[in-house]
Amino acid sequence: MTLDINRIRETLDHLLYRWLDVERLTRYPRYAEHDRATFDGVIELCARLAAEKFEPGNRLSDIREPAFDGTRVSLPEETAEACRAYNASGMPAAGQDYAHGGMQLPYIVEMAANSFFSAASIGLKAYSMLTVANANLLMAHGSETQKRVFAVPALEGRYFGTMNLSEPQAGSSLSDIATRAVPDGADFAADPLGPRYRLTGTKMWISGGEHELGENIIHLVLAKVPDEAGRLPPGTRGISLFVVPRLLLDASGAPTGERNDIALAGLNHKLGYRGTVNTLLNYGEGRFPLRAPGGTDGAGAIGYRVGDLGAGLKCMFHMMNEARIQVGLGAAMLGYAGYLASLDYARQRPQGRPTAEGATPAKDASQPPIAIVEHPDVKRMLLAQKAYAEGALAFELYCALLVDEQHGDQPARADEARLLLDLLTPVAKSWPSEWCLEGNSLAIQVLGGYGYTRDFPVEQHWRDNRLNMIHEGTHGIHALDLLGRKVLMKDGEALRILFGRIGATAAAAAAVDGLQPLARQLSAAVEIVALATAEAWRSGSARAALTNATGYLRAFGHMVLAWIWLDLAIVSAQALTAAGTAADFHRGKLAAARYFFAYELPLVAAWLAPVRACDSLCRETATDWL
Amino acid sequence: MTLDINRIRETLDHLLYRWLDVERLTRYPRYAEHDRATFDGVIELCARLAAEKFEPGNRLSDIREPAFDGTRVSLPEETAEACRAYNASGMPAAGQDYAHGGMQLPYIVEMAANSFFSAASIGLKAYSMLTVANANLLMAHGSETQKRVFAVPALEGRYFGTMNLSEPQAGSSLSDIATRAVPDGADFAADPLGPRYRLTGTKMWISGGEHELGENIIHLVLAKVPDEAGRLPPGTRGISLFVVPRLLLDASGAPTGERNDIALAGLNHKLGYRGTVNTLLNYGEGRFPLRAPGGTDGAGAIGYRVGDLGAGLKCMFHMMNEARIQVGLGAAMLGYAGYLASLDYARQRPQGRPTAEGATPAKDASQPPIAIVEHPDVKRMLLAQKAYAEGALAFELYCALLVDEQHGDQPARADEARLLLDLLTPVAKSWPSEWCLEGNSLAIQVLGGYGYTRDFPVEQHWRDNRLNMIHEGTHGIHALDLLGRKVLMKDGEALRILFGRIGATAAAAAAVDGLQPLARQLSAAVEIVALATAEAWRSGSARAALTNATGYLRAFGHMVLAWIWLDLAIVSAQALTAAGTAADFHRGKLAAARYFFAYELPLVAAWLAPVRACDSLCRETATDWL
Repeated sequence: MTLDINRIRETLDHLLYRWLDVERLTRYPRYAEHDRATFDGVIELCARLAAEKFEPGNRLSDIREPAFDGTRVSLPEETAEACRAYNASGMPAAGQDYAHGGMQLPYIVEMAANSFFSAASIGLKAYSMLTVANANLLMAHGSETQKRVFAVPALEGRYFGTMNLSEPQAGSSLSDIATRAVPDGADFAADPLGPRYRLTGTKMWISGGEHELGENIIHLVLAKVPDEAGRLPPGTRGISLFVVPRLLLDASGAPTGERNDIALAGLNHKLGYRGTVNTLLNYGEGRFPLRAPGGTDGAGAIGYRVGDLGAGLKCMFHMMNEARIQVGLGAAMLGYAGYLASLDYARQRPQGRPTAEGATPAKDASQPPIAIVEHPDVKRMLLAQKAYAEGALAFELYCALLVDEQHGDQPARADEARLLLDLLTPVAKSWPSEWCLEGNSLAIQVLGGYGYTRDFPVEQHWRDNRLNMIHEGTHGIHALDLLGRKVLMKDGEALRILFGRIGATAAAAAAVDGLQPLARQLSAAVEIVALATAEAWRSGSARAALTNATGYLRAFGHMVLAWIWLDLAIVSAQALTAAGTAADFHRGKLAAARYFFAYELPLVAAWLAPVRACDSLCRETATDWL
Repeated sequence: MTLDINRIRETLDHLLYRWLDVERLTRYPRYAEHDRATFDGVIELCARLAAEKFEPGNRLSDIREPAFDGTRVSLPEETAEACRAYNASGMPAAGQDYAHGGMQLPYIVEMAANSFFSAASIGLKAYSMLTVANANLLMAHGSETQKRVFAVPALEGRYFGTMNLSEPQAGSSLSDIATRAVPDGADFAADPLGPRYRLTGTKMWISGGEHELGENIIHLVLAKVPDEAGRLPPGTRGISLFVVPRLLLDASGAPTGERNDIALAGLNHKLGYRGTVNTLLNYGEGRFPLRAPGGTDGAGAIGYRVGDLGAGLKCMFHMMNEARIQVGLGAAMLGYAGYLASLDYARQRPQGRPTAEGATPAKDASQPPIAIVEHPDVKRMLLAQKAYAEGALAFELYCALLVDEQHGDQPARADEARLLLDLLTPVAKSWPSEWCLEGNSLAIQVLGGYGYTRDFPVEQHWRDNRLNMIHEGTHGIHALDLLGRKVLMKDGEALRILFGRIGATAAAAAAVDGLQPLARQLSAAVEIVALATAEAWRSGSARAALTNATGYLRAFGHMVLAWIWLDLAIVSAQALTAAGTAADFHRGKLAAARYFFAYELPLVAAWLAPVRACDSLCRETATDWL
């Protein structure tokens, strides 16, 4: 069973060019040298690389998960091959300036192109995703030397990068991190690579934390600098950011020949995403003792501060909206891959007969069986997957476009895009993580017993996708962010922008034959979400409002996706009135939209019931009652 | 992390003795020699065996999944030890007559006792579950010789048993099975073990199909006897049942020394349930050629017909209600195990601070972190799991009691129990399979990144539980059964019985302080389900009615579980008014009931929306649009 890359390509083309009119971005000065041909070239390249270099290693890297013999991490050769192919493609620098060897590609096109890798093998893709995020952060916040020494080699495909936030005792609560960074000698501030520190502490869940796939690994590490009494400053304002290379480099970027004191303490053995090595790293435990260039006692891994003291989280979160779009897009593509695999199976698998016309559910066993795709309940499971995956993909691309619109020359539009993206980010991260996971479960169900075996890819999609509700901020954290901060921003301005855009879609749909009931249903959903927002906050107490934040996130997300689907339905309804050869394609989009409105949107009111009632059950249940 | 067996025991005692008053069963003549002490003895024995012999092998048998070297299946020694302990306990014959060496234990007590094994290791438990189902079927439908030779050794714990229904091309559609059984020689009807046939064909998904854990494996196999022209009769009426031993036996039950021609064609490598070897079996491929006792050409595995020609499915389905209670109970116990594991973690894991009182969601980072069980969203995830798992367990025991009530001496009550159980069986199989799986996902979420690793049991629970929506009739098949047959039985008589019992609970709750709103909400749910039943069937066309059967099953299931929870809430509310030491226990039940009514029951109306509208989308969407 091979991933249907062309099918994904067809949907991407539709979304990019017909729905979002991405070509208009070439009117922005930053993207002026691009045209559809250059966009298509990148998309084609990635489609081909994903099919040829990522998909073949997907199952294999799941079965032969990373192993550590106490000295070295071993990965399948297919992992190295996939990473090499990606690094050689120029994609790591896709979004960078021409001046730094980049392509200056719009973010939405970069995301569309990268989506093939997520569909083909999300576990193998994570190495490059993290590396690019790391390098982009350094390009945004590092000194010129830090950019040249640590980031440019990564953008050239020679180095790998990681993000070190969590610790065993601090995941969601970053304010509690305990990794210490102390100035390395009296001359610590004079190092050309940046203020030099010695780091000690343990970092957990570090993807790509140790391997030998490239020339070096550049770790970006959050840590705290103790005060004069040796105490770590409380809260997130005490957090600084450090760049900590696995192999030490001099100011020219040449290896010094020394290994930094970063020890692999163990691998995490995961449910999914097994293609990505995930590590527990000990910084400065003394496994790789260093000569002490700064004259301190020599303990600790050497790291160079990036940005100001205490500005670590700000630097890290600068990139977070984009990282969350990537998580959401990855979840969407796993959903898409599961949809296509189960659709393919359902078309080929004969079993059962149609229910005969009549008052009793009779079947004629003398007739040959039909393909299971013909059974209404199988169609339901396929329509649900299509609605989840294609809807999520469309939504993530919409969010990516909001990133690009911030580069436009109309400041008001750029500000609106920034504010709207801030509001939508918790949904962009969470919605595909929850619903495309559900879609992956439906894919297993379509395949029945076969879906439960490793002979088909759908069980791996389901396992892989389960991570997405956990990493980059858990589901519950994003719910608090949405209801506790985002809908309140600027006195509700972001929410007003969103409701304005949804209203415009509903108004447009009201003029399209057949879409009027959907337009009314969407307007009613907006009304109830607006009401619930006010009702949740009516007591003025954050504690009360946020008790049911997760139900609010779910309802809000379904409202947003209903908006996306109605907008897509308008495009397809219009395309169908024109003469065209792709009638099936557009009827499929309309069917998925109708599915979403008939089967999913009614859930919004149910999820909001406890939100609107300010139900205190989940606050007031004593832990001893559980 | 060890399974909290005592906690399960406490809930079981509450359900059996306080809620369902199981002691009254001892007034039935069949159970007259029992009392609470004998019930408790069995329950204690199983609790201990599960903790000592099943739980320790659970993860190990997941990681070291069954392997086949072309000759022998290898399983971990822990698997053999668990099976030996179970077989030696007397439990295989728990429900059998004293005359056959059994305990004549009520079915509900047998189920309660067996529930510990599912919580401890569902994969290791499957061997005995299948063996007992196999032996019970033979005891009900076999000849005296078949009982003595094939079933009694299984009840004594010496033989293992399997059920062979599916084939690679026929899972849900048993009418399409192609395994052939031809009379074995002119004297085939004279064999003391039953009419002797030669079987050829391939059986898929056979759990326990090949291993060397016991002295023999007794396969029960569905096959078709061809007509004179060699054609297999179409439909399910052409299906007969055969007992096919792995090692041939003579009429005295002694091994003949010959191996039957049953070849292991391969193992299925599964997402979960890996403790259970799952096989593809070739009957009669010639791998183990047999001397031809019947004078035919010697091809085919030797099998003895059980019951009449064409009565195979009837015999098999005789036991099906009980098998489905067991699947539902297994799913419930996986949900319970996940709940207890995540509750334990949440109590011990410090992270984050409470949201401060005030208008903005502030936290005081200088305060020490609290245990995550204190966070409202974590409580929500724990309450949901508790509502799913404890509700499902209560419901399965209620269904098991309906089995026992059929043995009572009041024919009217026995008939009512039979009819009600027929109606509830699709829910008993499906509801825990869907919602305790969701609970297992929430358990992962509570543990965050740790839940995604093999260091904790919750990811295995989730994988194991994913099978339950697939085997013993898929979710969609049970939905068709419920809306297409069960609610219509005897002109809706079963539905009226159910609504009567729900109404009685609602009436009782209306008299209990604090439960009135729940009583009203339950009555409203019944009303809308009743309405939806009529609306689905309003056109009189089964094809139209069944298009949205799965949404109906979900809504119906939530109505049933709301009823169970309200009934449980009455018991706990009453217990709280009496002086007692277990106030936390009962407040927990009330909190779970409140959770279910506030957060879950509102979903019923949303799921029924397309059912009530007779939405034709999933019937009329063309496959080319997908």
